[in-house]
Amino acid sequence: MEVKTPKESLTILTDLVLPGETNYLDNLFGGELLARMDRACSIAARRHSRRIVVTASVNHVAFSKAIPVGSVVTIEAKVSRAFNSSMETYVDVWTEDRQSGSRTKVNEGIYTFVAVDETGKPVAIPQIRPETDLELTRFEGALRRKELSLVLAGKLKPGDATALKAVFS
Amino acid sequence: MEVKTPKESLTILTDLVLPGETNYLDNLFGGELLARMDRACSIAARRHSRRIVVTASVNHVAFSKAIPVGSVVTIEAKVSRAFNSSMETYVDVWTEDRQSGSRTKVNEGIYTFVAVDETGKPVAIPQIRPETDLELTRFEGALRRKELSLVLAGKLKPGDATALKAVFS
Amino acid sequence: MEVKTPKESLTILTDLVLPGETNYLDNLFGGELLARMDRACSIAARRHSRRIVVTASVNHVAFSKAIPVGSVVTIEAKVSRAFNSSMETYVDVWTEDRQSGSRTKVNEGIYTFVAVDETGKPVAIPQIRPETDLELTRFEGALRRKELSLVLAGKLKPGDATALKAVFS
Amino acid sequence: MEVKTPKESLTILTDLVLPGETNYLDNLFGGELLARMDRACSIAARRHSRRIVVTASVNHVAFSKAIPVGSVVTIEAKVSRAFNSSMETYVDVWTEDRQSGSRTKVNEGIYTFVAVDETGKPVAIPQIRPETDLELTRFEGALRRKELSLVLAGKLKPGDATALKAVFS
Amino acid sequence: MEVKTPKESLTILTDLVLPGETNYLDNLFGGELLARMDRACSIAARRHSRRIVVTASVNHVAFSKAIPVGSVVTIEAKVSRAFNSSMETYVDVWTEDRQSGSRTKVNEGIYTFVAVDETGKPVAIPQIRPETDLELTRFEGALRRKELSLVLAGKLKPGDATALKAVFS
Amino acid sequence: MEVKTPKESLTILTDLVLPGETNYLDNLFGGELLARMDRACSIAARRHSRRIVVTASVNHVAFSKAIPVGSVVTIEAKVSRAFNSSMETYVDVWTEDRQSGSRTKVNEGIYTFVAVDETGKPVAIPQIRPETDLELTRFEGALRRKELSLVLAGKLKPGDATALKAVFS
Repeated sequence: MEVKTPKESLTILTDLVLPGETNYLDNLFGGELLARMDRACSIAARRHSRRIVVTASVNHVAFSKAIPVGSVVTIEAKVSRAFNSSMETYVDVWTEDRQSGSRTKVNEGIYTFVAVDETGKPVAIPQIRPETDLELTRFEGALRRKELSLVLAGKLKPGDATALKAVFS
Repeated sequence: MEVKTPKESLTILTDLVLPGETNYLDNLFGGELLARMDRACSIAARRHSRRIVVTASVNHVAFSKAIPVGSVVTIEAKVSRAFNSSMETYVDVWTEDRQSGSRTKVNEGIYTFVAVDETGKPVAIPQIRPETDLELTRFEGALRRKELSLVLAGKLKPGDATALKAVFS
Repeated sequence: MEVKTPKESLTILTDLVLPGETNYLDNLFGGELLARMDRACSIAARRHSRRIVVTASVNHVAFSKAIPVGSVVTIEAKVSRAFNSSMETYVDVWTEDRQSGSRTKVNEGIYTFVAVDETGKPVAIPQIRPETDLELTRFEGALRRKELSLVLAGKLKPGDATALKAVFS
Repeated sequence: MEVKTPKESLTILTDLVLPGETNYLDNLFGGELLARMDRACSIAARRHSRRIVVTASVNHVAFSKAIPVGSVVTIEAKVSRAFNSSMETYVDVWTEDRQSGSRTKVNEGIYTFVAVDETGKPVAIPQIRPETDLELTRFEGALRRKELSLVLAGKLKPGDATALKAVFS
Repeated sequence: MEVKTPKESLTILTDLVLPGETNYLDNLFGGELLARMDRACSIAARRHSRRIVVTASVNHVAFSKAIPVGSVVTIEAKVSRAFNSSMETYVDVWTEDRQSGSRTKVNEGIYTFVAVDETGKPVAIPQIRPETDLELTRFEGALRRKELSLVLAGKLKPGDATALKAVFS
Repeated sequence: MEVKTPKESLTILTDLVLPGETNYLDNLFGGELLARMDRACSIAARRHSRRIVVTASVNHVAFSKAIPVGSVVTIEAKVSRAFNSSMETYVDVWTEDRQSGSRTKVNEGIYTFVAVDETGKPVAIPQIRPETDLELTRFEGALRRKELSLVLAGKLKPGDATALKAVFS
């Protein structure tokens, strides 16, 4: 089974916030940011799997700071863990100060994709080997998140969610 | 403290899927759907609180079926539970068959908002009294989801997440 | 011949006014509102006929109040009368006050559609049985409006426009 | 009182139909065409009055032919008649055959605007002197249409609508 | 070989600047203007050649004045010279003062297109016979610009660029 | 005077081509690509100067290959040379093959910006020290392009364009 690093799927989408993309408080409209994150994550998933990918779920998107009109927004997405045919992509969003150039984290989230063939049938994909500490933390958390998702969907009994149980007992 | 029902915040956004809103498989682009859901949920949160609301997080958005171009998409959002100044809104997405008129559930998700005053400071909001069985289920689940979110953010120890522990032990 | 009520085709499109949808006076751009009304009306016509529908004409759209950025706009469309293969849809537009929750009527209009089969040929559609007083008023007015439209297009002699003549003599 | 010709307000908006502007039958979306017509007409009204103008109503928009993706669409708007502070603009829409260059009329409509000062108060505007036969026909029809609009709004008794009565009696 | 005048391909695109089309200084966003110019020029090239046309290059676009939100912008494009299968279109951009009606030149540029058949193969096109002094100046400059473009692409030796050499020696 | 490398201003904008961004041949619409390039270049110019920047001109944009719907497009922009207050940014555009991951160059261009202070007055900016061979080639070419631009604008006599004369004599 082929193994790839998160870095190989790194996708960077740097763009402006124009007035046509704001909410009525003159900050980037949340729905527009969700859409940009979806675009970046789907490219990361495609770079990892070299397959057609479809969005399966979105989770843990946390809006920690408003992003004013005129900002430069950088979205960085990487595949954090691969399962049989599904992948978790982790996405971080940054703004930068025009005068100092320093970056501030404003948002992060997790988008999950399934790799499919031309007929829409799920296909096997390469696995992930994390390299940095942050990549490792996210790789390990991905299993708990997958269990949680299965429990919530009624496809896994809470008692069988081994990784999750370890947290709460 | 004022108490309101989920129905009082019900927001319906029925719209078409036009070619300019699709992905390259000619289905509704995931990012566009996330944006429409954000619009509907923020109106529900505003109707419940009668305040300015800002998106705090997005969770459990599950894309169960692709939505082809030309579809009629109905988004229904309601506040499922209110805390001090934050609200969970639950959103269901349906398509309908043109010839039979029957509806199919294609997506659901949870968007959380914070109610703020004109200076951006969080303000107290009315509480929720669920009326139907589904509303009650979602109301109860909301507490577990809030605990989970606090645990993941490192603001609550897993051992103190009472509602969550009950599930996994 | 099947008969349906206006309520069966009721279509609700609730949405925000974002800065990217305004004119240079920071109110909802008239063209954008016309487009949203077209979307809602075409869905109502499709729900009534369960057919492909194409816009035939637009009439009596009256902009009575400007709609400022940040507003919540609710568009409600219903089929008001059906003829052989064409339908009149009546659409009302409301805004709501954030703090009191009260609604204000800001616009209304009439969009006419033709139901066609897959080859583009007009097809017979169910008739309308109005239920409320307002629905009855609109149902009766629809015949005069249809006559007027035929007179203006030179397809009906003014002297043969029976319903219209009754008004002006 | 200043008098101007329709030609002085002529506004031409020639543009393509791209896939992002179509309905699901791959023709120009009706709402998008209504918006383009609104843009052209408001410029014509502004050129005539040299004032800020706001859309008051839309009438008699007749969609006679579908406009396929890839078409060149030419919108031509001119003020057809001026009243105290309101103006009727008449708009014609054409497509052209790429190979022969010949033009086909596909749509027409009437948009009415009010000229206002910086505080939103209606202001007096120049009158119209039609030059061509078509301009004269439209100038004369404008009075009947204004009467009709007042009658429908309940602001004029049918018996006082002199120009209209002449048609139907 | 057929010969046509620049006037025969004249394309006028008059439109507003709405808030959704601005940069964060509330002026027309440069990229949006480049896109509108591309639309107008491609129609001019198509009107001249009566063929499918594809953009080959963009040059000498000079932004001399900012265009504030609310402006009326008129884009006028004409084919300035035709070669075998490629055409140079010259485009001028104007704004107009609302109160005086006077026009100000704010931008100009040159877009080059290639005419192709249904299989994408370049095809011969009519030649251009300039009529006005400005059209003649642009017609003559087009040859120097074509040479320059070939030199920069390494497809013509500087010593063979006859028209260009005449300028710099 | 501060000196910076091109790499310090490197801006990467990776994005999809969705159906709403295509021309009627189902390839990325040229105007949309010009707009994306403008966004990326203006961020590079801002990162170099840490100032407000305004687009001054666009040149040498060469469309060498069509970009089909569904493609992943990567835009990379860097400042290639700085003058007193103006900067040349060089932008390369790539697509990548989904299955092999290999990249193909499809477009390049040059956008020039001026750095201004809050009142719109041009301000001095850091200079550029190229590091790679390609950066050096572009740095040297920038002077010839600036001379050419001044000659074409009538602000420099061809005989005084020292760098250009060296090429053509």
